[in-house]
Amino acid sequence: MTNNNYVAIMAGGVGSRFWPASRTSKPKQFLDILGVGKSLLRLTFERFLAVCPAENILIVTNELYKDLVLEHLPELKPNQILCEPSRNNTAPSVAYTAFRLKSMNPDANFVIAPSDHVILNEPEFVRIIKKALDFTAKNDALLTLGIEPTRPDTGYGYINFDQKNVTDNIFKVKKFTEKPNRQTAQQFIDSNEYLWNAGIFVWSADSILSSLQKNAPEVYAILEKGISDYNTDREAAFIEINYPKTPNISIDYAVAERADNIYTIPSQFGWSDLGTWGSLHAEATQDDAQNVVQGDSVILQNVSDCLVRVPKHKLVVLRDLHDYIVVDEDDVLLIFPKSSEQEIKKVTQDIEKTLGSGFL
Amino acid sequence: MTNNNYVAIMAGGVGSRFWPASRTSKPKQFLDILGVGKSLLRLTFERFLAVCPAENILIVTNELYKDLVLEHLPELKPNQILCEPSRNNTAPSVAYTAFRLKSMNPDANFVIAPSDHVILNEPEFVRIIKKALDFTAKNDALLTLGIEPTRPDTGYGYINFDQKNVTDNIFKVKKFTEKPNRQTAQQFIDSNEYLWNAGIFVWSADSILSSLQKNAPEVYAILEKGISDYNTDREAAFIEINYPKTPNISIDYAVAERADNIYTIPSQFGWSDLGTWGSLHAEATQDDAQNVVQGDSVILQNVSDCLVRVPKHKLVVLRDLHDYIVVDEDDVLLIFPKSSEQEIKKVTQDIEKTLGSGFL
Repeated sequence: MTNNNYVAIMAGGVGSRFWPASRTSKPKQFLDILGVGKSLLRLTFERFLAVCPAENILIVTNELYKDLVLEHLPELKPNQILCEPSRNNTAPSVAYTAFRLKSMNPDANFVIAPSDHVILNEPEFVRIIKKALDFTAKNDALLTLGIEPTRPDTGYGYINFDQKNVTDNIFKVKKFTEKPNRQTAQQFIDSNEYLWNAGIFVWSADSILSSLQKNAPEVYAILEKGISDYNTDREAAFIEINYPKTPNISIDYAVAERADNIYTIPSQFGWSDLGTWGSLHAEATQDDAQNVVQGDSVILQNVSDCLVRVPKHKLVVLRDLHDYIVVDEDDVLLIFPKSSEQEIKKVTQDIEKTLGSGFL
Repeated sequence: MTNNNYVAIMAGGVGSRFWPASRTSKPKQFLDILGVGKSLLRLTFERFLAVCPAENILIVTNELYKDLVLEHLPELKPNQILCEPSRNNTAPSVAYTAFRLKSMNPDANFVIAPSDHVILNEPEFVRIIKKALDFTAKNDALLTLGIEPTRPDTGYGYINFDQKNVTDNIFKVKKFTEKPNRQTAQQFIDSNEYLWNAGIFVWSADSILSSLQKNAPEVYAILEKGISDYNTDREAAFIEINYPKTPNISIDYAVAERADNIYTIPSQFGWSDLGTWGSLHAEATQDDAQNVVQGDSVILQNVSDCLVRVPKHKLVVLRDLHDYIVVDEDDVLLIFPKSSEQEIKKVTQDIEKTLGSGFL
């Protein structure tokens, strides 16, 4: 690997579907959601140390979380944290990152990935990331990792890849489909021509910036004005004023779905976006009754298929519960059927209306 | 009423069936179990102020709880608290109380009652207590209040009263039956000749002491040795040494079931012994879905027949739960089917074996 390779970790989300563990003031990526003793951000950072040295890793986050990032990743210097003053979705995040990296190194080539995913097979993940970086270093190509789907999930975006247009297992992408219905998702699975879009992108700063210039000209134009400010002591002031002016669009919509130089690598490395409590239950280590338990003194009697996350030193006695989420935070207790977890968002919206944002 | 009337409130129990709210260090009677802002002991004390002045009220408790009693009943002087150095059941408690009262007032006539019962109709209760005190002041009689039964409960003792031997609605008792089986309990109800034994006794110090001398001579003999010490500064030392020597027997077994001068008054004053979480659920104010909720921010969605007791400032969201007990204490969370509540005792026994007594 050359020193032109960088990793940008996006850590600005609020993780509202992991309420009440995830809060606006301390979102999911800063929590030990897996119960392994490290936050998701820390796990993601350590995983990427096999790709490039710590000084080549940037964290893109909301300015609210700068101190939390430094607390979780004390190896980083403050200028490795790109602070967004507003939540404008992923296209502006990617553009800001690309401008900053290009000002640091005109040949910069980088991965940009979420901070809150699970990847079980790290060596395979690192192998594929390196292969992707190698490809984008040599080609004007935008690459998104594709996950070989295991079920007709209607919550993901799907990548339709061109089985005939392939070199060394890197496929040209034909098109993207966001969150299909169940029947369409099943057809995608059956066709063997679709992958899940993991939201892990690899490209050179040059390639993504020219694609943004063409496909998201407004985002590009606003952030291009600071070209002489990036990586100087004027950057923060420039971003503070101009970043909030960028339109709120996702990188998928702005570029991935429009560009004609998109590629993918079909991958199997035990990926989960850990989108909900249910996906955590599916990914984490289960006991014989399919319970996932995070807590030191939890007594279960006739309890199955539950996710139990409670304070370490609390004694918890549960009896006759099946398919429930039981999450006890200091100030909030949630007992909710796992099969209804999509309703948690509605509950938090109601709480915000009636009790304010104090519990969110 | 004369100044010969006294009330002794027994407040030495550990209330283990109300775990995890009730703990050895702070049992049920010191908790606001009803969620009304006052402990059961405080409610009991205030109820008896309509019977006699505060200075005629004694509290009989374990010496562990002396400070808690004074905290809940700041009106009392320390010498109004009779401290037992060991848990020897109710016969020694009654004997100690009677000796103390007799030394204070040879004509003492008193009620002795638990500290942790619910009584909904206080005027009727006070009316009956006064009538009973009046009767025992004038007769060498032992009187136990009888509750008109509303269901064939197998958890109570039953009083068989003599319908032909009655004066002014005060009946002679024929015999006692402890915790009958379901079929027997139903026969008792159908016969209209049985009452529940509430464990609320009324008698003069003289009458109960002579009955103890005859029917529980060992208890009597041990505590009679201190006759010149009661109500002096030697009492504590005498009790400390001698009380633990008394046999562990209940007043029901020692006297009520043996004496031939036992009377009862059939009563209806909304009594419950609040023996379990389920009985609290039955007695407390329920919402439209038969939930009893103690907590300020509890959101229930499709929840019925539950008892929810949580810290005041905790936000609690429960969905799809029916017939559960949900009790959240600082250090313990219990989620347990109400219909299985008899098993909670076994759970706490297991916890003591595996985790020690720290949570009990």
